[in-house]
Amino acid sequence: MADPRFYSLAGPFDLGRLAEIAGADLTAGTDAERVFHDVAPLATALPEHVSFLDNRRYRPEFENSRAGACVVDPELTGFAPEDMMLLISEDPYRTYALIARAFHPPRPPSPGVAPSATIDPTASMGAGCEVNAGAVVDPGAEVGARTVIGANAWVGPGVVVGEDCRIGANANLSHCLIGDRVTIHPGVCIGQPGFGFPPSAKGHLDVPQLGRVIVGDDVDIGAGTTIDRGAGPDTTIGAGCRIDNLVQIGHNVELGRGCVLVAQSGIAGSTKVGDFVMLGGQVGLAGHLRIGDGARVAGKSGVSKDIPPGATFSGYPAFPVREHWRQVATLAKLARRDRKGD
Amino acid sequence: MADPRFYSLAGPFDLGRLAEIAGADLTAGTDAERVFHDVAPLATALPEHVSFLDNRRYRPEFENSRAGACVVDPELTGFAPEDMMLLISEDPYRTYALIARAFHPPRPPSPGVAPSATIDPTASMGAGCEVNAGAVVDPGAEVGARTVIGANAWVGPGVVVGEDCRIGANANLSHCLIGDRVTIHPGVCIGQPGFGFPPSAKGHLDVPQLGRVIVGDDVDIGAGTTIDRGAGPDTTIGAGCRIDNLVQIGHNVELGRGCVLVAQSGIAGSTKVGDFVMLGGQVGLAGHLRIGDGARVAGKSGVSKDIPPGATFSGYPAFPVREHWRQVATLAKLARRDRKGD
Amino acid sequence: MADPRFYSLAGPFDLGRLAEIAGADLTAGTDAERVFHDVAPLATALPEHVSFLDNRRYRPEFENSRAGACVVDPELTGFAPEDMMLLISEDPYRTYALIARAFHPPRPPSPGVAPSATIDPTASMGAGCEVNAGAVVDPGAEVGARTVIGANAWVGPGVVVGEDCRIGANANLSHCLIGDRVTIHPGVCIGQPGFGFPPSAKGHLDVPQLGRVIVGDDVDIGAGTTIDRGAGPDTTIGAGCRIDNLVQIGHNVELGRGCVLVAQSGIAGSTKVGDFVMLGGQVGLAGHLRIGDGARVAGKSGVSKDIPPGATFSGYPAFPVREHWRQVATLAKLARRDRKGD
Repeated sequence: MADPRFYSLAGPFDLGRLAEIAGADLTAGTDAERVFHDVAPLATALPEHVSFLDNRRYRPEFENSRAGACVVDPELTGFAPEDMMLLISEDPYRTYALIARAFHPPRPPSPGVAPSATIDPTASMGAGCEVNAGAVVDPGAEVGARTVIGANAWVGPGVVVGEDCRIGANANLSHCLIGDRVTIHPGVCIGQPGFGFPPSAKGHLDVPQLGRVIVGDDVDIGAGTTIDRGAGPDTTIGAGCRIDNLVQIGHNVELGRGCVLVAQSGIAGSTKVGDFVMLGGQVGLAGHLRIGDGARVAGKSGVSKDIPPGATFSGYPAFPVREHWRQVATLAKLARRDRKGD
Repeated sequence: MADPRFYSLAGPFDLGRLAEIAGADLTAGTDAERVFHDVAPLATALPEHVSFLDNRRYRPEFENSRAGACVVDPELTGFAPEDMMLLISEDPYRTYALIARAFHPPRPPSPGVAPSATIDPTASMGAGCEVNAGAVVDPGAEVGARTVIGANAWVGPGVVVGEDCRIGANANLSHCLIGDRVTIHPGVCIGQPGFGFPPSAKGHLDVPQLGRVIVGDDVDIGAGTTIDRGAGPDTTIGAGCRIDNLVQIGHNVELGRGCVLVAQSGIAGSTKVGDFVMLGGQVGLAGHLRIGDGARVAGKSGVSKDIPPGATFSGYPAFPVREHWRQVATLAKLARRDRKGD
Repeated sequence: MADPRFYSLAGPFDLGRLAEIAGADLTAGTDAERVFHDVAPLATALPEHVSFLDNRRYRPEFENSRAGACVVDPELTGFAPEDMMLLISEDPYRTYALIARAFHPPRPPSPGVAPSATIDPTASMGAGCEVNAGAVVDPGAEVGARTVIGANAWVGPGVVVGEDCRIGANANLSHCLIGDRVTIHPGVCIGQPGFGFPPSAKGHLDVPQLGRVIVGDDVDIGAGTTIDRGAGPDTTIGAGCRIDNLVQIGHNVELGRGCVLVAQSGIAGSTKVGDFVMLGGQVGLAGHLRIGDGARVAGKSGVSKDIPPGATFSGYPAFPVREHWRQVATLAKLARRDRKGD
């Protein structure tokens, strides 16, 4: 189903093998030997495809799907078309992910250096790296084994990149140490100086920004995102973080492990964010805050105070989420009364 | 008037010809043979220039302008300086656009491939393409006739670009099919994987993103904008859309025809947007919504519910625009009372 | 203390020399001949380092710091550890900046043109320029003496860049005139056409954008920021402005001198901003506004009306800051009452 111009395809696999790969249960009586050729969305899947349902909103598409098999939550099995085979899972999205990865394993690097790439003789490149056209690796940089450097990307002087990383086209890395298995998408800018100066009517005086950006293992950084280096301390991104597109991270920010930052969110300088924190799209965190482990901030909120661990905040300025929605309801009610009173 | 370092100039044209090009009316007695040499803004125009007024806010500049001729709404003709010739139009901005295009037609491509560009032998290039220095066209890509590829831009494997397109410098295209006459400005990132994973404290598991980005004809995509490819379905951008700078479009989003997305707006995954929808600057749409044809959302609004066709919404969270402004007025009044009560 | 892979180090300096460089006072009896080797943050500084304290929030780190010397506000001297030497300053951040610059002076350019760079024969390059790998300088461009052009950056046709500028990797310059000592960080896009067209269901008609971007001396423009060229007038950025990452500036905008725009803020077309205006992160200014000299707008505010000189505004929509916070307090109180009444 996936466009062969862009995606190579493994398999086919029989259903029993897919259930095993994904740790899913088959309903009793299912023909575990039936063969499947790819995954596909509910709306376009054919009998040779496996699909999934993880959002009740899409139940109508499920009920009308021609997919031969589908990963589904136990509570939704009753809505399945009669001919559909079911892979039952308490976490259908995760189960689907494992099946999709079996059909579409990540492309391995194609080792070699394009003729138009520029690698400084003092840079060190690990075995099996793929360096694409126009990429530039500057003096003293160190790139780990099997890392892919995209077209026209720039790896600045002294930068360290770990093993099995993917650096996107036109990405920019300076003053940073990048862990293993990190994916950096196109157009990312990491390591430029933070925004630091004593403002003055005589002319703003730039303060040397002398720290680095330290990115942990297994981090994913979205297209066009910018991460400034520390002013003196480092800016640190914990292992396993997922950072979406066009996110801004200021100098000295510390992100814990496994944080999720949705697109266009921003974190001002020196704010410390705990582990597994989730920021919705377009959220803004002011500088010098502490955001506790597991905290969540709803999309577009503006946070100017610390958030305790595990709390969910929302609004501008941000309040605990229930309080925010009560404020919204109260104001809507008062405004309606106001109209009637006019 | 336009800086000749950057703009070439056609013409001159006499006023009659310009009125004809633009479908505008001349006031009675106007000398249709008077010759004009360029367009210029009201404040700096000279007698040899044509200017325009489409915003009452700039009436003082109109009244004092030295422009030889001006495109103007019929209702504003009374404020014109005595010597100014008038091109009367119900849509002065459009009329001006046609005249400005006559003086400054788009530069045609300069066919050829720069020596430092890299075009894979398996890529197919249409006749008359212009490929600038450092640009990279990967295996299996197809580029239509007369398309211009900017310096250091990257056209990824298998990407299809139509005819008469302009791909900006340092732009990044992967996993996408681009229509004809599409303009993509510098630094744009199209086709990177969407932000999709089942979050888990054991480590976020990335779900293969197996769709594409389909961009219709006559679309314009602003600098630094990011458009993720679909997860399984495609991300689709309808014909004639105008997307400003630093906009984020998540995976599986569908934009109808002729939508206008102002800078820094963002649309989360799987939201379906109708035809001719307008989003103001910094607007955020949550995921999985439906926005009806012709809907409008005021700048900086945060939308978390569906919007019906033709409606105008505003606020965070967004309400119908009148309701939002009533809420603003009510709260301002209550806060003032509160102060007096203290 | 700064990582030698990224930062070269001048000095050492004795304390008397540092006090002189920074215009700071030593406390009576201080050994002005003691030698220091670098600056460092309070938390990690050793006895051979100079640190600074400019935010009371970090007093605990100050009290426990091992720094040999520290720049500090006169009011905070009483909290210093016994052995710490003090450099007293009414503006500790500025004083620290001067000391840090002594230890870490800006790297001078390394004159020369990388073999993979492309400089058009009709472009003019000043003496001592450094042009990095893959950079492209187009026909008719003029680049001033000692300017550094980063890897894979693009300087478009006719662009003028002043002396002692730094153009970041993968930055894009077109239709612009850049002053002296301007720093442009990676991924910046300057000079693309503004977002201008009369919307129409028959197809949006693009209006030729015939102006330029004029950037004054000593401006700093953050990574990924986009600045559109004027439609007819120019877009102008006053001398000494500091623009952070991912900021959007629309066509015809005028910024006065010394403005500070924090990350992800945006200014819509034709808005005129005075001198020394400060916009917080994610602020949005609507189009055609006038923002007075010295005005300040708090982070994430949405401004749709003019702001008088010297005023501080906040909120969405933005109000004078006190009024906004009173509204926030009033609404929180009413919502709490509402709950009790339920």
